[in-house]
Amino acid sequence: MERYRIVFSGSGGQGVITASIILAEAAALHEGLNAVQSQNYGPEARGGATRADVIISDRAIRFPKVNQPNVLICLTQEAYNRYSGTVRPGGLLLTDSHFVKLERKVDARQLELGMYKSVLDAIGKPVVFNICMLGAMIGLTHIVSTESIIKVLETKIPSGFLEMNRRALEIGLQLADSLPAKSS
Amino acid sequence: MERYRIVFSGSGGQGVITASIILAEAAALHEGLNAVQSQNYGPEARGGATRADVIISDRAIRFPKVNQPNVLICLTQEAYNRYSGTVRPGGLLLTDSHFVKLERKVDARQLELGMYKSVLDAIGKPVVFNICMLGAMIGLTHIVSTESIIKVLETKIPSGFLEMNRRALEIGLQLADSLPAKSS
Repeated sequence: MERYRIVFSGSGGQGVITASIILAEAAALHEGLNAVQSQNYGPEARGGATRADVIISDRAIRFPKVNQPNVLICLTQEAYNRYSGTVRPGGLLLTDSHFVKLERKVDARQLELGMYKSVLDAIGKPVVFNICMLGAMIGLTHIVSTESIIKVLETKIPSGFLEMNRRALEIGLQLADSLPAKSS
Repeated sequence: MERYRIVFSGSGGQGVITASIILAEAAALHEGLNAVQSQNYGPEARGGATRADVIISDRAIRFPKVNQPNVLICLTQEAYNRYSGTVRPGGLLLTDSHFVKLERKVDARQLELGMYKSVLDAIGKPVVFNICMLGAMIGLTHIVSTESIIKVLETKIPSGFLEMNRRALEIGLQLADSLPAKSS
């Protein structure tokens, strides 16, 4: 398989770290892959910025930090401004249209989706925005299956909130499906 | 300051990853330090083992993985058997007496505490075992202040459960205090 180097970036409270751990656990516990998940808290973290890295591979992973992601998700303008230049040529840059205004061209597939707005319209709870984002991301990349994500959600989410999380995941998958097929 | 290289090891469901993220955020968001937190999911993870690494420093942290921890916490026998040999000479190895039987000498301060039993006796909820362990660990090392841990808990724990978490943290601190002072 391709080695996936994924960076989730945004602000504290958007659930970026939780989403990245769910993805790593789905890959490692339910798809027989290796995964490393990490976050580096420096001075930006004290300003509210959050970044979480995930590497997924069928081989051993020695260095856990991602320098050039092939999948980059930016959920704030600050994250987009800081990281969009790091996306690997030919990779994927996903942003949320509520939070990010695209300002530059990158040598990657650049997609913006109305994830936050869709979650608010359909569910009314911004707390599952991160799960919708995860749905969109796996709908676009197929790094892991939806079933593997749901298996992890079942171990982490109190049963009363599971249905809301499933719906948010489904909204993300549908948003990814609504895009025109990749031309390449 | 000393650079702290900390490994939390145990099994899925013991809250090891959550505890490690709380520690990293306490250091980074409330004490002006840098922190990196990571977990590497390999084949052992599919067998239920969990390991989380944290590095805390006042300088930049380039390599996020810990090879030789100066603080090692083992919450299962398997984790103890696997990792106790890696503790840095002069470091600290902390185990829980309910889960781990000490079987070897290490060139480090080796402490076992009845954290699990104390939490069950006083609170009755094993879910806060990880917070008690975190309390014991910061009571022994003073890596971050209790107040910084509580500030992070306040952002992560629903208000109805905050008091239970504070009590678990306090139990851990008291267990650490009950030990004879370090001889060196």
